[in-house]
Amino acid sequence: MIKKVTIYDIAKVLNVTAATVSRALNNNKNISEATKKLVLETAEKMNYEPNKLALALKSGKSNNIGVIVPRINTNFFGSIIRGIEDELNPSGYHIIICQSHNDETKEINNIESLINSQVDAIFISTSSKHSEQFEKILKKNIPLIFFDRKKTMDGVSSVTIDDFAGGYMATKHLIDQGCRKIAHLASGDFKIEIFHDRHEGYKQALIDHGIDYREDYVIHTTSKIAEGKIAVAQLFELDEKPDAIFSSSDFLALGAIQELKARNIKIPEEVAVIGFANEPFTNFEELSISTIDQFPVEMGQMTARVFLEQMATSQNIKIDKKVVMEPKLIIRKSSKK
Amino acid sequence: MIKKVTIYDIAKVLNVTAATVSRALNNNKNISEATKKLVLETAEKMNYEPNKLALALKSGKSNNIGVIVPRINTNFFGSIIRGIEDELNPSGYHIIICQSHNDETKEINNIESLINSQVDAIFISTSSKHSEQFEKILKKNIPLIFFDRKKTMDGVSSVTIDDFAGGYMATKHLIDQGCRKIAHLASGDFKIEIFHDRHEGYKQALIDHGIDYREDYVIHTTSKIAEGKIAVAQLFELDEKPDAIFSSSDFLALGAIQELKARNIKIPEEVAVIGFANEPFTNFEELSISTIDQFPVEMGQMTARVFLEQMATSQNIKIDKKVVMEPKLIIRKSSKK
Repeated sequence: MIKKVTIYDIAKVLNVTAATVSRALNNNKNISEATKKLVLETAEKMNYEPNKLALALKSGKSNNIGVIVPRINTNFFGSIIRGIEDELNPSGYHIIICQSHNDETKEINNIESLINSQVDAIFISTSSKHSEQFEKILKKNIPLIFFDRKKTMDGVSSVTIDDFAGGYMATKHLIDQGCRKIAHLASGDFKIEIFHDRHEGYKQALIDHGIDYREDYVIHTTSKIAEGKIAVAQLFELDEKPDAIFSSSDFLALGAIQELKARNIKIPEEVAVIGFANEPFTNFEELSISTIDQFPVEMGQMTARVFLEQMATSQNIKIDKKVVMEPKLIIRKSSKK
Repeated sequence: MIKKVTIYDIAKVLNVTAATVSRALNNNKNISEATKKLVLETAEKMNYEPNKLALALKSGKSNNIGVIVPRINTNFFGSIIRGIEDELNPSGYHIIICQSHNDETKEINNIESLINSQVDAIFISTSSKHSEQFEKILKKNIPLIFFDRKKTMDGVSSVTIDDFAGGYMATKHLIDQGCRKIAHLASGDFKIEIFHDRHEGYKQALIDHGIDYREDYVIHTTSKIAEGKIAVAQLFELDEKPDAIFSSSDFLALGAIQELKARNIKIPEEVAVIGFANEPFTNFEELSISTIDQFPVEMGQMTARVFLEQMATSQNIKIDKKVVMEPKLIIRKSSKK
């Protein structure tokens, strides 16, 4: 393998710092014309191939990265964005954020806005059932990375957690607590991979433990406290009431718990409850709701690292990296018998 | 007063719709060249003066509005942004968001990023002690509007709540409950107007009711649950323990309540607590924390309306509008004796 020439090699030959070489290559105004000329000639002689990052900097792009999330006001997405910022700010990138409100049309508008803003890359947690808009981003040579809610697309990297495993471990935990009639509150459309996968994990755990899967135990709803209350009311109209609830959202789980309490149903003795996402309120002493941690800060950092790696690679290499992180079961009072 | 010529007047003369006139003036590709020519000539003849909004649209700007907030993952700022989106999306504007993490340097970087993105306006809830960066925005003729955390600047509009009134009504409520030894947890620097004003309101309410202001009852800290616990520990080292706490942050109030509970101090009987912002968790049945509502959705809508009004005004009129909204006291279990 031929070792790639770096700015450090050029710096060594010219007896200047790598920073000087970098500035000269990026046409920085604080570097004299003479130095610029010398660096450029030397770089050419040594067959220096600038990486994508350097090219992006040189091309006068915005240094802005656009991040699209369904909503900003949850700890989960807030933490992912913090992870992205922590990792990218030191490289001189800034983050601008759009929210899609789980609406495909708004998401397409967000993409337009970010392209108009000349962002250098788009990181997205998608709420779309389609993928034409992503082809458009790629055609414009704007790097695209999915996190959390992805579309499986060739040539596009993604950073997700293993949602199947999350659904499985939550359900298995309820089974381990002696529950057999386990309902599932699904906080999103199964056409969105994360909700599909969590439900599949739930189903598989039931099957593996010889428990019948019942369609009337699966409630399709949205991630709101009020919807959790409604879902419990619906479940408790069934002849055979559930003895446990696995919710794919902490907000739904909280609503479910409030409705169970209002009905004087003991938690976890009569109904055990587990949510998903480890939102901070689940850890309030007064609530203590079991949940699945998705390590959002780490997910954001990893997304940023996948991008930086892609940028540091020479242009003729295409990277398609799928990072899947393992979620973690957190057992609290709402499910521990 | 001379009546201003509008696109409706032009439409009437030409017997076309106002939408056609608007499209023609904005050089829309779906309008024939002949119609465009006719509309432009008629507009000129009638001395039509396009408003700023039309100009912005015509000038091929981004139609993006940049919004800078200290942090995205609170209900308060999330709701303000929703209010802005609700009001501006129908006018064809899109919102891109940056967070400053209460850091002045990051805020300056955010402003740079948004200017680079060619946003049509910047709405900001500032964490800065200085205002040079805002002069820069104005010099570039980018409309600037403050919301919630403002700087008082000539020629710049702002939408805020009356934080003095908020601090006053929270403190007066505690006095009405029979409390006399009222501590204040300040969640930010008094150089930031909202925290300064809430503290002033607290102080004035004490004075008006003949209660001495004590410096050792004022704790300067940051808006985190853990800090609320520390603040209570600090207050309870004093010889004269407080019998009430007014916190300028709900998160701090929650931490304070958790620490009081851990010390077996009865809430509200021994210590009454009130927070600020009406974050959703304060309304959880399990917590029930008194607070001050700031109507964030309405604040966002109002900010957007001030902007639209500014855009609809002809260029030679300068608007400097200071909107101050009245906050509302919400009494819950943590303070109601």
